[in-house]
Amino acid sequence: MKKVALLGFGTVGGGVEEVLRVNRDEIAKNIGEEVELKYILDIRDFTGTPFEKQVVSDISIIENDPEIVAAAECIGGATIAYDFVKRLLLAGKSVVTSNKELVAVKGLELQAIAREKGVCFLFEASVGGGIPIIRPLTNDLAANRIDEVFGIVNGTTNYILFQMLQCGKDFDTALREAQQNGYAEADPTADIEGIDACRKICILSDLCFGKNVSPESVRTRGITCVTAQDTAFAEKLGYAIKLIARAKRVGEGVSAYVAPHLISSEKLLANVSGVMNAVVVRGNAVGDCLFYGAGAGKLPTASAVAADLLDAVSGRAKSPEWTEAPEGYVIPSETLSSRWYVRAAKSSALGEKFDCVFSENECAAIIPECTETELSGILASIEVRSAFRIIE
Amino acid sequence: MKKVALLGFGTVGGGVEEVLRVNRDEIAKNIGEEVELKYILDIRDFTGTPFEKQVVSDISIIENDPEIVAAAECIGGATIAYDFVKRLLLAGKSVVTSNKELVAVKGLELQAIAREKGVCFLFEASVGGGIPIIRPLTNDLAANRIDEVFGIVNGTTNYILFQMLQCGKDFDTALREAQQNGYAEADPTADIEGIDACRKICILSDLCFGKNVSPESVRTRGITCVTAQDTAFAEKLGYAIKLIARAKRVGEGVSAYVAPHLISSEKLLANVSGVMNAVVVRGNAVGDCLFYGAGAGKLPTASAVAADLLDAVSGRAKSPEWTEAPEGYVIPSETLSSRWYVRAAKSSALGEKFDCVFSENECAAIIPECTETELSGILASIEVRSAFRIIE
Repeated sequence: MKKVALLGFGTVGGGVEEVLRVNRDEIAKNIGEEVELKYILDIRDFTGTPFEKQVVSDISIIENDPEIVAAAECIGGATIAYDFVKRLLLAGKSVVTSNKELVAVKGLELQAIAREKGVCFLFEASVGGGIPIIRPLTNDLAANRIDEVFGIVNGTTNYILFQMLQCGKDFDTALREAQQNGYAEADPTADIEGIDACRKICILSDLCFGKNVSPESVRTRGITCVTAQDTAFAEKLGYAIKLIARAKRVGEGVSAYVAPHLISSEKLLANVSGVMNAVVVRGNAVGDCLFYGAGAGKLPTASAVAADLLDAVSGRAKSPEWTEAPEGYVIPSETLSSRWYVRAAKSSALGEKFDCVFSENECAAIIPECTETELSGILASIEVRSAFRIIE
Repeated sequence: MKKVALLGFGTVGGGVEEVLRVNRDEIAKNIGEEVELKYILDIRDFTGTPFEKQVVSDISIIENDPEIVAAAECIGGATIAYDFVKRLLLAGKSVVTSNKELVAVKGLELQAIAREKGVCFLFEASVGGGIPIIRPLTNDLAANRIDEVFGIVNGTTNYILFQMLQCGKDFDTALREAQQNGYAEADPTADIEGIDACRKICILSDLCFGKNVSPESVRTRGITCVTAQDTAFAEKLGYAIKLIARAKRVGEGVSAYVAPHLISSEKLLANVSGVMNAVVVRGNAVGDCLFYGAGAGKLPTASAVAADLLDAVSGRAKSPEWTEAPEGYVIPSETLSSRWYVRAAKSSALGEKFDCVFSENECAAIIPECTETELSGILASIEVRSAFRIIE
């Protein structure tokens, strides 16, 4: 019997409790012993609920209980969660988390503490929710040199773009409906501005390329600049528009950024619809692998958090490790070559220079491979309304 | 420095040697020490090649060398490979393999020997080539009750079906071209009759549901019964035809079978083209996850074999475990309900009973959910030319 603790009893924390309880027999069979959730840390009052005896409000109870081998952090943010996770690691407990902000901002420090203390710091649920991606990257693809990782890592924006394409809705309408359906938060900034995707690509980049990428070094564009006309033009040209987070090895450095991209509709990634997530990993031996599933939600996220907990208590887990990056490690995306989609006024010179598709007032074209800097030169005389990369 | 051996120096074996050599630095960084390929077992003469000093022709050299901690079996088949793998496991060496026949037929015995000897028996490459699927199933999804696993696990048949759909080719033409392009073997029986897919679903079922499924208990239909008219009708109805290997939990048993299926073209699986593979895992917490990538080929397969080797030498790996199944564990697929696609002569009663699409001489319809037995009753008066399940 292994005893664990849960920090935070909100949506994800509730899911972790549920998964550990409902799948108790499966879990015992899979890891060879039972796992007991001894404590739930929360500041709310759970008197009269089934959790009454598990709930504690003081982290030091968990910190000082030698029976506790691992804890799942489901508080969120990088303030209290950071403090508690650090204390538990220093106390020699393994910690697992679904908190991408914590991992992106404080992961370098926390994994170093875990290594020093001989415990685990695991975060499978921080990218792609329930989709197995972190462990496959660090274990199954360990014999590869990873050259690139990219994908759809934010379900809210994927849902909004899908609604814009399928129903011709404009961005504001699609966002409002996403909020009404519970797919977007009241303050949607972190999603629609790409901040959430930025944290996730930092984590993926840390793991794939071994050096720390901090969120502020990643150029981040959200989807507020995508119009219904863009999604319609893209479809006409044989593409879908997706918010892509991407990190690509460039010499000794990494180009990491977040931006809307066009993807050929024949590619699997273009067909990832609704709130689903998918990540493509490009290795020098395996080629392209794609991992697809629910990128958020109570039970899918809890599935990954619980798997990390089981791995942590098994004593077999290997924490991902990465190091500080040298100056200039993150290379500006402006220097990356790609084909481009460009939209401009119908009356502009775009139609004279390139093969275009047209609407009543606008036109759009695919520009052959060039860097962002070169693109500015090519389109110098044209007032560009949208310019998105095409990902191959 | 960890020392390993390679059994068999054909395509996959050559790939494993190449991956270990080319990615030596990445591997050392990832697992914290170097891995040396000390022996290559092959009966051919490699005098004058760079492998001269590594090649041995006697398994007992590897068996009796205490420096060797793990070996990769790349011989194929379940005769010599079985003998050698068993000897090495009994000698206390971990063994990894890409050999699906060996795992499907002898896996139950071999994993039990590995457990008894405290070593590993790993086979990530046996299903889906380079795609991480075995380890995610046994680790990342360990907190789930898996309810179903299905997918496209044979690239040759997927390539042939894709050619039939895209180019309207008939089966024989598509097969011949696949052979000319190196995507089908001179004797294509194991692929086109579903035997290869059958072995793979046995392995997936063993892992997902914990009890042994032997290939002869799995009803297996290949793709020789699929006509160009079927792929054309399917497309008209909004579906693709794919050879699907499937195992589904039914009460205390499992229904496992291989057959062509229709899949809605909106689903990701319908868009898996060419020789690529994809496996869907349905868990009670995570929902549907999909794993996609190259299901065969020298380097993708070697990527998975090498990852298993690294895991085996790390001492952290957990071998998948499963047990003998009770009588009646595999439940006949006839009792599984689904919607169906049916093709018949235009002059048949199919058109009177159901909404049909038509060609010059034939028609096809989608039949509402029923079992195979019920379907026979519903279509009793009709001479059915094709009947395929629809997978949801």
